[in-house]
Amino acid sequence: MYVIGERINGMFRSVARAIRERNADAIADLARRQVEAGAHVLDLNTGPTGEDPAGIMTWLVSVVQDAVDVPLCIDSPRPAVVAAGLKACRRPAIINSTTGAREKLDALLPLAAEHGAGIIALTIDERGIPRNAEARAEIALAILAATMEAGIPPERLYLDPIVLPVNAAQAQCKEALAAIGAFRHLCDPPPHIIVGLSNVSQGAPNRSLINRTYLAMCLAVGLDTAILDPLDEELMAVLRAANMLLDKEIYAEGLLG
Amino acid sequence: MYVIGERINGMFRSVARAIRERNADAIADLARRQVEAGAHVLDLNTGPTGEDPAGIMTWLVSVVQDAVDVPLCIDSPRPAVVAAGLKACRRPAIINSTTGAREKLDALLPLAAEHGAGIIALTIDERGIPRNAEARAEIALAILAATMEAGIPPERLYLDPIVLPVNAAQAQCKEALAAIGAFRHLCDPPPHIIVGLSNVSQGAPNRSLINRTYLAMCLAVGLDTAILDPLDEELMAVLRAANMLLDKEIYAEGLLG
Repeated sequence: MYVIGERINGMFRSVARAIRERNADAIADLARRQVEAGAHVLDLNTGPTGEDPAGIMTWLVSVVQDAVDVPLCIDSPRPAVVAAGLKACRRPAIINSTTGAREKLDALLPLAAEHGAGIIALTIDERGIPRNAEARAEIALAILAATMEAGIPPERLYLDPIVLPVNAAQAQCKEALAAIGAFRHLCDPPPHIIVGLSNVSQGAPNRSLINRTYLAMCLAVGLDTAILDPLDEELMAVLRAANMLLDKEIYAEGLLG
Repeated sequence: MYVIGERINGMFRSVARAIRERNADAIADLARRQVEAGAHVLDLNTGPTGEDPAGIMTWLVSVVQDAVDVPLCIDSPRPAVVAAGLKACRRPAIINSTTGAREKLDALLPLAAEHGAGIIALTIDERGIPRNAEARAEIALAILAATMEAGIPPERLYLDPIVLPVNAAQAQCKEALAAIGAFRHLCDPPPHIIVGLSNVSQGAPNRSLINRTYLAMCLAVGLDTAILDPLDEELMAVLRAANMLLDKEIYAEGLLG
């Protein structure tokens, strides 16, 4: 499983402050700690900044690239910010994210093609969040067709079934699981399948328990990438155990803490 | 999910002693604690006794029935012991277990039919443990046919894909997961699907972590029953979280500890 570390995000208060103060050490430290904890990629999100979000994204990329040698995931709702981030990246990055909406695809697929980037695609479109697995798979198929048309092969596409909070949209959790199973059969080899794991526990107590239980469940049905908090040790222990149970990592007692 | 409590088993030293000393209080206490912790059924296994295993099974059934009001699972490799246990049960029990081997089926299916009992069936046969999911499904189908012929409907059959220890047969863990997915499509409505969960961590450190991770994974692909340790609080927390994530239990903060 491919782990994308979620912690460099301006939605976290401490990160917002570090960004405001251009505190490169604090950002670099968070980058290093996530990579040491097992992140293969780091997500960068400026959060709601005042001025110059593109400049801030460029700064984040540069600080993190100087600290760690992993690919980056450029996370912004604004194509201009994504473009600035991609331009600053020394190695191919991942765009976070498009949806199945035409306007988004038209803005972001050319960027992904131009920079050789991967792209995360949320399976929603102009009609909003689909209410079941079938509707998600339908949008996924349209996204797959659009990316291939844009010259982006399935191995650079990360389909996201949209995980919603269990305390607000309980029935959607199993629909997202079923969608993961369906996405695996869209083409051969299949695209990557990704979730933003922490969404499932948004607003709930016992967030880590919910996150790690859902992670094991998603892995069982075919998830291969997740944006998550690699600093959550219990979560990472479940991830290693699940990888062993799926025979994707060689069993070793020492890896289970 | 249907939880079968595994703790009244003579393989545990303290239970073996309680059986030897005919200590009804110790057995009754273990029965009550498991039911309070969430067990819906209790497994009874005399372990390797010296004399009169049928008499001991009868005693166990009577002690446990006096302590708690849940169905029992009569667990013995000997048909005569199973028969004695079933005879002592006040309400329909579950037989643990047959395999797909003709001799076992011939001995146990008539007992299940006679007593209106459920029956757990391990998907192995004369050829031993199958090496992949397909071979498990093939045996499952033969067992399903045999049970139906014996007048036992699918809702009284509990198919077990055979869970082996991850530290000894790592690749088999994912085969068992795939088999669970396959068993769901054998007939409609499908038979129950069960695992002996603790097997997966036999001989490993971090048993609870491995058990609870595998439980979440099995539930994601369609498991509906498990023999497990209901006194493992972290395991039961994962079970409740998974049931909520599958929309099988209404989300409630208080249930997650």
